[in-house]
Amino acid sequence: MNIAALQAIALSVRSLTIDAIQKANSGHPGMPMGAAELGAYLYGVELKYNPKDPKWLNRDRFVLSAGHGSMFLYSLIHMAGFDLSLDDIKAFRQVGSKCPGHPEYGRTPGVETTTGPLGQGIATAVGMAIAERKMMAHFNTPGHQILDHFVFALAGDGCMMEGVASEACSLAGHLGLGNLIVYYDSNHISIDGPTDITFSEDVGRRFEAYGWQVLRGSMYNFEDIASLTAEAKAEKDRPSLIILDSIIGKGAPTKQGTSSVHGSPLGDEEARKTKEGLGIPLDKPFWVAPEAYSYFKEHQGELEKEYDAWQLRFEAWQKANPSLAQELTIWLSGKEMHKLDMPSFAVGDKVATRNASGKCLAAISTAWPNFIGGSADLTNPNVSQLPQNTDGTPLVFSKTNPMGRYIYFGVREHAMAAIANGIALYGGLRPFVATFLVFSDYLRPALRLSALMRLPVIFVLTHDSIYVGEDGPTHQPIEALAALRAIPNLKVLRPADAEETSASWKIAMERLDGPTVLVLSRQNLPVLEKHESDWSSKIRLGAYVVKDSDRAPEVTLVGSGSEVSLAISAAEIVKSKRHETAIRVVSVPDRGAFYASCPTVREIILSPGSKVFVAEAGVAQGWERIAPSDQILSIERFGESGPGDKVAEYLGFTAQTLARMILAKLD
Amino acid sequence: MNIAALQAIALSVRSLTIDAIQKANSGHPGMPMGAAELGAYLYGVELKYNPKDPKWLNRDRFVLSAGHGSMFLYSLIHMAGFDLSLDDIKAFRQVGSKCPGHPEYGRTPGVETTTGPLGQGIATAVGMAIAERKMMAHFNTPGHQILDHFVFALAGDGCMMEGVASEACSLAGHLGLGNLIVYYDSNHISIDGPTDITFSEDVGRRFEAYGWQVLRGSMYNFEDIASLTAEAKAEKDRPSLIILDSIIGKGAPTKQGTSSVHGSPLGDEEARKTKEGLGIPLDKPFWVAPEAYSYFKEHQGELEKEYDAWQLRFEAWQKANPSLAQELTIWLSGKEMHKLDMPSFAVGDKVATRNASGKCLAAISTAWPNFIGGSADLTNPNVSQLPQNTDGTPLVFSKTNPMGRYIYFGVREHAMAAIANGIALYGGLRPFVATFLVFSDYLRPALRLSALMRLPVIFVLTHDSIYVGEDGPTHQPIEALAALRAIPNLKVLRPADAEETSASWKIAMERLDGPTVLVLSRQNLPVLEKHESDWSSKIRLGAYVVKDSDRAPEVTLVGSGSEVSLAISAAEIVKSKRHETAIRVVSVPDRGAFYASCPTVREIILSPGSKVFVAEAGVAQGWERIAPSDQILSIERFGESGPGDKVAEYLGFTAQTLARMILAKLD
Repeated sequence: MNIAALQAIALSVRSLTIDAIQKANSGHPGMPMGAAELGAYLYGVELKYNPKDPKWLNRDRFVLSAGHGSMFLYSLIHMAGFDLSLDDIKAFRQVGSKCPGHPEYGRTPGVETTTGPLGQGIATAVGMAIAERKMMAHFNTPGHQILDHFVFALAGDGCMMEGVASEACSLAGHLGLGNLIVYYDSNHISIDGPTDITFSEDVGRRFEAYGWQVLRGSMYNFEDIASLTAEAKAEKDRPSLIILDSIIGKGAPTKQGTSSVHGSPLGDEEARKTKEGLGIPLDKPFWVAPEAYSYFKEHQGELEKEYDAWQLRFEAWQKANPSLAQELTIWLSGKEMHKLDMPSFAVGDKVATRNASGKCLAAISTAWPNFIGGSADLTNPNVSQLPQNTDGTPLVFSKTNPMGRYIYFGVREHAMAAIANGIALYGGLRPFVATFLVFSDYLRPALRLSALMRLPVIFVLTHDSIYVGEDGPTHQPIEALAALRAIPNLKVLRPADAEETSASWKIAMERLDGPTVLVLSRQNLPVLEKHESDWSSKIRLGAYVVKDSDRAPEVTLVGSGSEVSLAISAAEIVKSKRHETAIRVVSVPDRGAFYASCPTVREIILSPGSKVFVAEAGVAQGWERIAPSDQILSIERFGESGPGDKVAEYLGFTAQTLARMILAKLD
Repeated sequence: MNIAALQAIALSVRSLTIDAIQKANSGHPGMPMGAAELGAYLYGVELKYNPKDPKWLNRDRFVLSAGHGSMFLYSLIHMAGFDLSLDDIKAFRQVGSKCPGHPEYGRTPGVETTTGPLGQGIATAVGMAIAERKMMAHFNTPGHQILDHFVFALAGDGCMMEGVASEACSLAGHLGLGNLIVYYDSNHISIDGPTDITFSEDVGRRFEAYGWQVLRGSMYNFEDIASLTAEAKAEKDRPSLIILDSIIGKGAPTKQGTSSVHGSPLGDEEARKTKEGLGIPLDKPFWVAPEAYSYFKEHQGELEKEYDAWQLRFEAWQKANPSLAQELTIWLSGKEMHKLDMPSFAVGDKVATRNASGKCLAAISTAWPNFIGGSADLTNPNVSQLPQNTDGTPLVFSKTNPMGRYIYFGVREHAMAAIANGIALYGGLRPFVATFLVFSDYLRPALRLSALMRLPVIFVLTHDSIYVGEDGPTHQPIEALAALRAIPNLKVLRPADAEETSASWKIAMERLDGPTVLVLSRQNLPVLEKHESDWSSKIRLGAYVVKDSDRAPEVTLVGSGSEVSLAISAAEIVKSKRHETAIRVVSVPDRGAFYASCPTVREIILSPGSKVFVAEAGVAQGWERIAPSDQILSIERFGESGPGDKVAEYLGFTAQTLARMILAKLD
């Protein structure tokens, strides 16, 4: 190791951090200044990457879980030769910049995931490590190792306090992810002050309890970092936590080691004194040590050699394994590998959409051998099990069976979703996760990041309304659907029957630029006869006419999921009481798409001139766009424990009530 | 200990559990059957309670964190003599029953909190233990201990896996809550199968790392349970985890020890065989062993003696400490103790509503000495600090200062909210918690339980929109406000300026039947001159006219928070371009109340005949009720990192855009 060069790199991280944050007058200098040495070591020595090919398959993944320390990443990415200029750094935290306040996936080359909300990065890194294990098992051959990189993450005290990190690290220990190495920047400072005001647990011991290897050293000793990292890499059966004692904002003479340096610019005076103390020229803003640039220039040559060697290995692998190579191409494309043969259902049959979904999973897992996922300990209720492998190999992903594709996530919804993000980010695999709709609250922060990063993660959310029944209000979603529909980039599909479920799964699998939620019923629903024969194309516009009248409708009844058959029943009741009523029933499996479709489409479907009524087994919020609130039958309170139909009656959520509402408006 | 009687009680728990679940044809027999012995010990020996006074101040609190095992609780509550009959148990899981599927607070005497969503109960118990420590410190005197009970919880594997439990238990260890005793029903089975498929960590070691005392024993040895509990109670400085090895569904001959007994009725055949094996008469459904009833009858006598002795202690305490006694009465009422003297603000001043809120906190903490809370490591950004105590005692609640009233929750949003629920449930204290609005996602499952239980918890959620600025999309709420407004029973207040903030805090403090969210700005907002002098009463209806025209308005501009001043600016622009335009501006700090108010109120405020426009720095969802979607200026995408005003410009969310939208509709 060229210690002098690494010191120059660390010094430059501090220099760029100070100036970028001073210029933006906003940012978090504490972490990059405190952990600059680790950054120098990682980008200068440890990590395998190619700045000219930032998506290189076998690159080491590095996740900055402490995302507020984004200048750590930007400084190093810049010096290491990625397409990130000093001018980009000078635009830190400005609109349109490649250096936004927190690292954003897709915005900056070399940024592997969006971080900032604490705990997410480390859980996402667990997902990447799972993905690598699976991909290694599938594609490496005895003769050719095309995947042998590591997943590194850097986490701070905040990440260690978040529950999502606890969940993910417990699972990582269980799965024995020896390819995962987490550095813990232990600076004992959080925003509110020293961590001892609230966080006095023994983190190392906790991780040992999870089954991790735990190592300890100093952030400011390169030999330490190198030897601990080597030890971590040598441990193949356990993930490693390397606890590095550090000083937040190291180098700031009066502020280092205090919470004041966590999230605010140093200020002119302190910045000047810091530079003086460290030997950063005062007259050269955004200064980078020439030794840092020259070191990286040379280092790039070495990295390129490794990269070229890998290319040769890869080509040899391709030659030796042509069908595997073709498979890899298809896996990486996200497309199906075999013809998709979705199940069909008979009109009139009664099938819970969760069960229909279960049948779809079998078809999908055949068409996409890279389909991988599981449930947060609700496999049977979610009907999320995948079919057993036909070759007799075990289905479940585990320490001893990395070929597996079903993951038992345990009762860890939040980590499950963040792990799915990591799997999606890794590439090559198509992740899905499952839980009850009401527990989407538990995984919402990770789901938000899916949406923000536009990752193709699929969320199977069953037990979608009060029809859950006996489990009662804690398990009956009321506000969950509205809350999910509010999230940008998230496709929320709520199929009305088994056929729509099958069509929804197809849409979800074809969608590669964002997450999709499938909202499914616990209870049986009749497979509907559809008025429009091209309904399965039309639902891509969000809605279609499921039942129509032979005349221009007086009434248009709108709903999704189980409310579509409820609307059909209500229509029957209305017609039995007021024979001449012309009623149309519209299914809206994708309200977002429907609202986003062109106004003419909406107008035609809703039949201009008709009175529009909506039924929703949850809050009305958002449906007022197409119907006056007194024409929406909704549930604006929490549910009740009892058989589903009794609960519905008790809450007045029945076809009879809807029919009465309609009749009252017609008379 | 009368072991025979305890065995009879345990047997009766199994009997009632089997029959109630068979009759309902729905429920979770595994946990009550597996942990019946602990239940017998707790209700038969350990717990201090009075079934005739279930709210007795000094009762031991018992939280069934594994809430799916509700029949555990109902069986014992029934036998122990609370107002819960066998007929109630026969109505298990029926609409309106006192025995809903999961325990529901307020529905059943002796049920201390609503549980079911895993991890919540244990975190809530931590809150109760914090509350007791604080109340003990405040009200016990050297001569009189009116509070000396314990907080017990029973948690299963699922609870141990949930992140919220990890967060809460880490904090409990830090705070040294020796009054908290958690039994871990370690049956090694979850829904998906044996826990070793996903959960192989050493839970005991993890809790030791948190600073807990960890004890181990068998679920089926009463002596074990008793001696371990004694040991736990003797440890004053650390919470205790008692790990009890158990067999899920114990007694069911073919199903015990398997996941099939977790969440489904035993079935006729297995139920019969279980009863035969255990010696439960087959011909007596809902059988309770006579020895169980007679034991409890006698035990009630002993408990009453303890209760009566406490009453004497309490009376002596009252006599010796009349002002403290008066204080306790007021604390328990939830009302203010001293005159509330809210801060005033000058019209035209520019004040961030988070800063206005900070000033209110000072006034509130004087009026309510029982006001207690804190932030998830964002004290300064949330401006959630309370003023220092005037008597010089330390402000912060800690192991050594249980008198404290400010809690450093650490980066543990989810546990923070669940703990606040526990504090509110305990009674006597008025809890508040704080974080960024965007991180309300992290605490949403606990917030939902606040709303479901109608607990008076106050959530201070600052940094309420894209005006957060540089921190970027991970920190800029877009969908959060809509998602919160969708939750039943939750009051969401988004004040437009400092004065409205003050009024909102008053409303929040006066509200005792549900949680309140205060949504506050990071950026400065002008203190508005209000057209309606009685605005502060009117906002109880949700909305008021902040600025009016001298004629019937052509245009009504509606918004909340920072969008009210944006609307005022837009009105100026419109009038500068189209002089005659009559514009009204309406502030809607409480959309829920506004929508719930009578139609006439809404009509008058929105001025019939005027065109209604809305501005919302987030998704439009829910505003379509009062304005067509092309008259709503909203943000339907994630934000952007940059100075707040630049981000707003970039997203087209400005007074100019709003003015253009209005002018286009008028011409």
